[in-house]
Amino acid sequence: MNNHQVRLAARPVGLPKATDWSYTKEAVGEPVAGNFLVKVLYISLDPAMRGWMNEGRSYMPPVAIGEVMRALAIGRVIASRNPVFAVGDHVSGPFGVQEYALSDGKGVMKVEPDLAPLPSHLGVLGMTGRTAYFGLLEVGRPKPGETVVVSAAAGAVGSIVGQIARIKGCRAVGIVGGAEKCRYLVNELGFDAAIDYKSEDVRAALKQHCPKGIDVYFDNVGGDILEAALARLARHARIVICGAISQYNLTGPQRGPSNYMALLVNRASMTGFLVGDYAARNEEATAALAAWLADGSIKSREDIVKGLRSFPDAFARLFTGENTGKLVLQLSTE
Amino acid sequence: MNNHQVRLAARPVGLPKATDWSYTKEAVGEPVAGNFLVKVLYISLDPAMRGWMNEGRSYMPPVAIGEVMRALAIGRVIASRNPVFAVGDHVSGPFGVQEYALSDGKGVMKVEPDLAPLPSHLGVLGMTGRTAYFGLLEVGRPKPGETVVVSAAAGAVGSIVGQIARIKGCRAVGIVGGAEKCRYLVNELGFDAAIDYKSEDVRAALKQHCPKGIDVYFDNVGGDILEAALARLARHARIVICGAISQYNLTGPQRGPSNYMALLVNRASMTGFLVGDYAARNEEATAALAAWLADGSIKSREDIVKGLRSFPDAFARLFTGENTGKLVLQLSTE
Repeated sequence: MNNHQVRLAARPVGLPKATDWSYTKEAVGEPVAGNFLVKVLYISLDPAMRGWMNEGRSYMPPVAIGEVMRALAIGRVIASRNPVFAVGDHVSGPFGVQEYALSDGKGVMKVEPDLAPLPSHLGVLGMTGRTAYFGLLEVGRPKPGETVVVSAAAGAVGSIVGQIARIKGCRAVGIVGGAEKCRYLVNELGFDAAIDYKSEDVRAALKQHCPKGIDVYFDNVGGDILEAALARLARHARIVICGAISQYNLTGPQRGPSNYMALLVNRASMTGFLVGDYAARNEEATAALAAWLADGSIKSREDIVKGLRSFPDAFARLFTGENTGKLVLQLSTE
Repeated sequence: MNNHQVRLAARPVGLPKATDWSYTKEAVGEPVAGNFLVKVLYISLDPAMRGWMNEGRSYMPPVAIGEVMRALAIGRVIASRNPVFAVGDHVSGPFGVQEYALSDGKGVMKVEPDLAPLPSHLGVLGMTGRTAYFGLLEVGRPKPGETVVVSAAAGAVGSIVGQIARIKGCRAVGIVGGAEKCRYLVNELGFDAAIDYKSEDVRAALKQHCPKGIDVYFDNVGGDILEAALARLARHARIVICGAISQYNLTGPQRGPSNYMALLVNRASMTGFLVGDYAARNEEATAALAAWLADGSIKSREDIVKGLRSFPDAFARLFTGENTGKLVLQLSTE
């Protein structure tokens, strides 16, 4: 039985291109004592993966050249010499961009396929949902009646941030690219307003839609949109720095927000955040998100692309704004 | 009796120049009921005043063209129709750059001349000291054993920040311009280390002097030094944004820290701060600072320049790095 894999062939300059990846095929291994073998079904595609491809100090070591590309995934245990994970269990973990993965259980959680379709366990019930949950509630700390603005609001994390903001009694305003995504936010997800950065003046639109200023800005993009949000902060506003998609593929120097002194004028804060720091509370978040999903107060959408060979193109779509909802690569359904 | 005044004549472009100021002379007024007349003795010169000279929305309205330049000052009440402030009282308040000021008591506090020389009431016992006190302790929240870095560390606020950090059991590292200021910090004020940004590579020096990273960075300058500090943050670091002297006189666009994503990597925060928000706790801060001054754990230095006509040149020194300690304009000693 063969295991097809996608490996990092070169450190990308700018948007990753075909030659930054290589394909390998090796025999599927047998689990040693304490390990188990997973057949990978769905792979999570996340903007953070772009950061893992760069050299240099960050919150985790970079993927080495020649290594199987790191990715979260969901799979099914097909052989096990581990007492916790049995054949037939569905599991999520850092299985990488490959068809089969051996694991010792580190970073692996069981998932309950009856709770929701498997791809949702990578989205709203997975790290994506928990990023929205802890980032908004623990770092943003929104109070009822406040205005929450989120960028990349039709994306996996952003769409959940806005919906949790609504659940908590806040006004939710999303910034997205394109009229179709605006409609999706307002008509399907219940956002109070949506701003199309491709066709609107974001500063003017924020002024219109946030008449009392922005209390919480959940930033996934950086760049011009972060600056526009800084220019519209309410007093004591909290900016949650979750990502900076607009900056990840720059070949020149990254840009900081030139108007960061708005933090002083408004006695505001900008705080960086990593979901992994809240791992001890994963169950709390998943339970809350599952309840909201069940009662319809959160809607989830997955954007599913099929086949290991589709990985490079699918991954690039994260940075061109083409996906809506959680982007997932499907390798198999069973 | 004449009142000589300095007024804002034009909105400066870059560093204020002679023609941005005008001098006026008018008869000293008589206080109406509820008001009192102050003879201004010492005027506080602060980098924040540069911000007040610009058009546009900020935390307080700009000084209007033709208006007496706004400034904090200390004076003596020489005529009063106010029951709280009596002739002979020493007071501090927003009296402006002029020899005499009429006041209704708004923003005015009595000062105790026996506690310390009058200029100290504009420095360590005034808004300057309180800025260091609340900014460091309430926003920076240093814990014993942590490393606190402060920029413009030989300046009025910075020198007190470092000394409070030492009192609280932290390692204090100051960034200044020039070897003489470095010696002052380490030999006279008890900082653990000082970095001369004019002759040293600040990033390398921060690495050397902050082996476990920076836990609290108190920023007065912005620009390159803020970027260097971001590059050396410890996990869960707190950046206090108190000012951005390096940016106030730029004629081009201001610069944001290009590596602000260090906030994410280190789960760190950057928070803007205005001392006025802590006015209800002024007495607590002044009492603590007075006690530290009395027992020698804080040393204070004032840099005193004489004469109203010296104001423009003295003010400009704030931005050229020429002053050490609190810069004060003396109009009279009695």
